Amino acid sequence: MRTARTIAGVRELLDASRGATTTVGLVATMGALHEGHLSLIEAARADCDIVVLSLFVNPTQFAPDEDLSSYPRDEERDAKLAEDWGVEVLFAPTVEEMYPPGFATSVVVGGDLSARLEGAHRGVQHFAAVATVVTKLLNIVAPDVAYFGQKDAQQALVVKRLVSDLAIPTRIVVCPTVREADGLARSSRNAYLTPAERARAVALSRTLERTAAMIANGERDGVAAAAAARSELAERGVDPEYFDIVDPERLTPVSEIDAPVLVAVAARVGRARLIDNVIATPGSAGAS
Amino acid sequence: MRTARTIAGVRELLDASRGATTTVGLVATMGALHEGHLSLIEAARADCDIVVLSLFVNPTQFAPDEDLSSYPRDEERDAKLAEDWGVEVLFAPTVEEMYPPGFATSVVVGGDLSARLEGAHRGVQHFAAVATVVTKLLNIVAPDVAYFGQKDAQQALVVKRLVSDLAIPTRIVVCPTVREADGLARSSRNAYLTPAERARAVALSRTLERTAAMIANGERDGVAAAAAARSELAERGVDPEYFDIVDPERLTPVSEIDAPVLVAVAARVGRARLIDNVIATPGSAGAS
Repeated sequence: MRTARTIAGVRELLDASRGATTTVGLVATMGALHEGHLSLIEAARADCDIVVLSLFVNPTQFAPDEDLSSYPRDEERDAKLAEDWGVEVLFAPTVEEMYPPGFATSVVVGGDLSARLEGAHRGVQHFAAVATVVTKLLNIVAPDVAYFGQKDAQQALVVKRLVSDLAIPTRIVVCPTVREADGLARSSRNAYLTPAERARAVALSRTLERTAAMIANGERDGVAAAAAARSELAERGVDPEYFDIVDPERLTPVSEIDAPVLVAVAARVGRARLIDNVIATPGSAGAS
Repeated sequence: MRTARTIAGVRELLDASRGATTTVGLVATMGALHEGHLSLIEAARADCDIVVLSLFVNPTQFAPDEDLSSYPRDEERDAKLAEDWGVEVLFAPTVEEMYPPGFATSVVVGGDLSARLEGAHRGVQHFAAVATVVTKLLNIVAPDVAYFGQKDAQQALVVKRLVSDLAIPTRIVVCPTVREADGLARSSRNAYLTPAERARAVALSRTLERTAAMIANGERDGVAAAAAARSELAERGVDPEYFDIVDPERLTPVSEIDAPVLVAVAARVGRARLIDNVIATPGSAGAS
């Protein structure tokens, strides 16, 4: 594995190995690598000749009251994992390399995709920051394919939208959420959980599963299903920032469920802010 | 010359002729081609193996009260000129091809570059629309070099900023303003001028020249120089939207001129809204 810290450096590494038929895959991360990232790397290795992992804790996507300063960072560990997992090129730029003095450009995906769910709670600036850094990473690496996790469903929709709208010549692949044995979605922020909080955190995935099962079994009322889920979360000691049943492409709330929906939750458990989601298909259990 | 109307089509044309060492130049236009565009094409032909001309009257960069509906359009004439001038590929997409249903992404260059001068008068949305369409055209054509005119000085600064900030792998070249024999800057909008307005329109370039000469001859007071210029414009029957002396990179107003400045003017002459500018260098006439 080769490591580059500059835009020019990573382009040089890639130009040296990129031929006319070489395909490049990008997995963009903020480090603190876990099995979820591994699944993205494995998907990239299966499709592409060269796998690039970017490691950049993007400060602009953290609100002032969020966990930028405490976000888990251990580049040495991450670099070793990336190498073990078959990454060819690690791109680990500094903040100054990505945002030099005078930087003034934002990529903004307007409307519901940025404003709903996470946007409503973290602020629309969050997805402008994500869209901007992803656009820049795609321009730097020029991958044929870039891999994102379904765990960050809204981020994946924002990225697919901007790639389509701006005609960025990269295919976006969204990979399934990777979970712990008990269902908890893998996340770098799980590292913040104490053992007691870790036990409580399973409420998110359990409630999502329960809601998806209700919908599969015939529940059509999105408002009732979300209310039942919020009660269940409360019983399990979790007070969600949101628990929403929405259109899986547009993120608008769905009151009458007659097509697959995205069921999404965000909640603080201890000092970790966790998110998770499932796609639920009405009547898929045959009980409608 | 080959013509493409779709993103896939122009990529196919370019992929067929682009080799490892082929360089592609892009001249992005709204049609109504004139000698100013010709100078950009000539610069591209001198540098590049393949010259692409895009022809797209971008509706989003016109405010509701502006001249979108009357903007001069004659694709047949433009295509013939482009071919005569040595353009290899004409990319003339429809509005629907560039902005399909669901389009939601904007590229925004924040701060003074978008807010000053034209931004203050046409609205900051103008340069967001310019930045978005230029980003998309650069992503579609993937040129090695793209050529813009100094006549649209602020546009050129916005484009250079976003290309740098988003790490778009295209070099931006800004070519000198092309003028009529009497000094009037070439512009598609000159077609709106009646003969009497055409005679009056020369006031813009004359006043810019006079101001640059004052500064070259030792004038250091930006406020006084701009006031003198506004008087001269008034004497010549032109009431400018602005006549500003600004930092040529940051567009902030300059009151004490001790380095080269951008002198920029916008004025309506009849139904044409005209802009022009010069770079003025203090003391360059040796009289300071």
